[in-house]
Amino acid sequence: SRSIDLAVIPGDGIGQEVVAEGLKVLSAVLPQDVKLETKEYDFGARRYHATGDTLTDADLEQLKRHDAILLGAIGDPSVPSGVLERGFLLKLRFAFDHHVNLRPSKLLPGVATPLAGQPEIDFIVVREGTEGPYTGNGGTIRKGTPHEVATEVSVNTAFGVERVVRDAFERAQARPRKKLTLVHKNNVLTFAGHLWTGIFNKVAEEYPEVTTDYIHVDAATIYLVTDPGRFDVIVTDNLFGDIITDLAAAVSGGIGVAASGNINPSREFPSMFEPVHGSAPDIAGQGKADPTATVLSVALLLRHLGYDTEADRIEQAVSADLAERGALPARSTSEIGDALAVRVAG
Amino acid sequence: SRSIDLAVIPGDGIGQEVVAEGLKVLSAVLPQDVKLETKEYDFGARRYHATGDTLTDADLEQLKRHDAILLGAIGDPSVPSGVLERGFLLKLRFAFDHHVNLRPSKLLPGVATPLAGQPEIDFIVVREGTEGPYTGNGGTIRKGTPHEVATEVSVNTAFGVERVVRDAFERAQARPRKKLTLVHKNNVLTFAGHLWTGIFNKVAEEYPEVTTDYIHVDAATIYLVTDPGRFDVIVTDNLFGDIITDLAAAVSGGIGVAASGNINPSREFPSMFEPVHGSAPDIAGQGKADPTATVLSVALLLRHLGYDTEADRIEQAVSADLAERGALPARSTSEIGDALAVRVAG
Ligand SMILES: CC(C)[C@H](C(=O)O)[C@@H](O)C(=O)O
Ligand SMILES: CC(C)[C@H](C(=O)O)[C@@H](O)C(=O)O
Repeated sequence: SRSIDLAVIPGDGIGQEVVAEGLKVLSAVLPQDVKLETKEYDFGARRYHATGDTLTDADLEQLKRHDAILLGAIGDPSVPSGVLERGFLLKLRFAFDHHVNLRPSKLLPGVATPLAGQPEIDFIVVREGTEGPYTGNGGTIRKGTPHEVATEVSVNTAFGVERVVRDAFERAQARPRKKLTLVHKNNVLTFAGHLWTGIFNKVAEEYPEVTTDYIHVDAATIYLVTDPGRFDVIVTDNLFGDIITDLAAAVSGGIGVAASGNINPSREFPSMFEPVHGSAPDIAGQGKADPTATVLSVALLLRHLGYDTEADRIEQAVSADLAERGALPARSTSEIGDALAVRVAG
Repeated sequence: SRSIDLAVIPGDGIGQEVVAEGLKVLSAVLPQDVKLETKEYDFGARRYHATGDTLTDADLEQLKRHDAILLGAIGDPSVPSGVLERGFLLKLRFAFDHHVNLRPSKLLPGVATPLAGQPEIDFIVVREGTEGPYTGNGGTIRKGTPHEVATEVSVNTAFGVERVVRDAFERAQARPRKKLTLVHKNNVLTFAGHLWTGIFNKVAEEYPEVTTDYIHVDAATIYLVTDPGRFDVIVTDNLFGDIITDLAAAVSGGIGVAASGNINPSREFPSMFEPVHGSAPDIAGQGKADPTATVLSVALLLRHLGYDTEADRIEQAVSADLAERGALPARSTSEIGDALAVRVAG
């Protein structure tokens, strides 16, 4: 008999509320014969204030044993900027080698977009997750003086770039349009740009069916608002991926519906799935948060573990629910979760 | 009697066409008593192919003598990516210490935007122009091997950050809304982020009338499409500024109308004014390019040199022209230039 052993990290702010709905829908969609085990972890602002810890070696040992991780949101204004981001979120991505940061963008029927004319949007971004300017390399001298110098070093390796580029080609190959766009800034960041572009072009030779192109990151933001339909799969570096996926989420229905996976394709470590939105402390605890992004992250999680049918059912339920939203009065976090649970079970 | 001694760099692609119209409007707007002298320079792809040079020390000596520089566009597919960007555009910005890269975004009446609901947009971005990941620091080891490592170093100094932050506060102070937003990614790029945020907060104390806030660059792209009206003045680093100003141009009428100034506020070296768009080789030589961005760059140039009345006249002419465009048949590059020249003279 099958089983899923899940680490659950509700985290801060609305994280608690949305994760509860994600688990509700997960339980509802799984067939009887699949045993679901969950273990909750208390990472985030409260743990940090209580103990000063964000994520210890012992924590990582425990997390490692699970099949996958579901995360709500981490971050709170009471903690200095960077402490939880570097100390928990990025530490986990690096420790578990989450080098494929997968972020789909699909504008579903009935969903509002800030763009005029309701364009067709259906692409995925494969963001590198363990290199680039996110490595924490760099430093500061003469801190706090008029002669302070602070550096940030973007580190890019052939090993790291090639594996994520290959992953993106595989995903492009599996999609009907088979189109892959490299987004970088190779006219200015020439060292990293040369590495990315060279590897991209080399791997492309192995995928003759995949159409490829290249766009500078600044121009990519223009296309995302003027012609988002041109994108099918995008592969890009860690920082550019961070920036364009927030924009991609905004144009395809908002961060209320944007899901993401921090994936270790080799399965050496568990992958982590989380909504793109943050902890939104201003609306926390009020039942106002939209759990849809978390529910869609559960679908990505199921697909990663091989439960494609169940992932499809969740995505269909979300589509149907969103299509009807305009006609319904506003619902609370748990009402949306209930409605989705009913749909996936039905 | 007054005079303007201008270096003119038409450059590549549509650069030639749009600069001709910029000069046409400049001549038309200047009062009789102002003597306009122009000297044309042949930088760009042709010069590079003919001589292998992009910008020599002797060139810089010559350019230095002018009051200001008007540039069309530099870049051609026949030149490897990075050669003209690093060898000319960035070399000039660094050599002449153009640390204030000024990019206004205003959605004028009658101008199409990809955003629904025709929002009000009127802000300026003050992008740092001489530091950050644009310094060319970094390098490559084991090039072309499976063990290649490429680094890009973002260099940030208290000196460089403080002067651009001060410039932005001055500009915010002079605008009716008096609001300044710092855009960075201080939760991940903690070394540079700490420097930027610390200096921003320190300088803010000297400008009690200016309202300030901070937004991560990823979230800034969301606001630029969902609530662009929230911005008045933005100050940001070189790379973030590059990215968000292309998006800002896209939502406020497109790069056909986006102007920019590469400014040395100390006037130690001439400042350079250019449209944000590139050389667009696909439409070059066909009279299809919109010269409006160049004409608006001429207005920025005039304002920099103290010709505020003339700058206002150009901006009013452009507003009036754009407001009528929807009702007119499509016009060529020079027809638009002619129309603007008539308006500013009248
Ligand atoms: C919170 C932050 C560390 C994170 C990132 O920059 O990757 C977030 O913006 C994201 O996109 O997941
Ligand atoms: C062409 C390139 C070097 C330049 C930049 O990145 O600054 C351009 O994109 C711009 O914004 O002026």
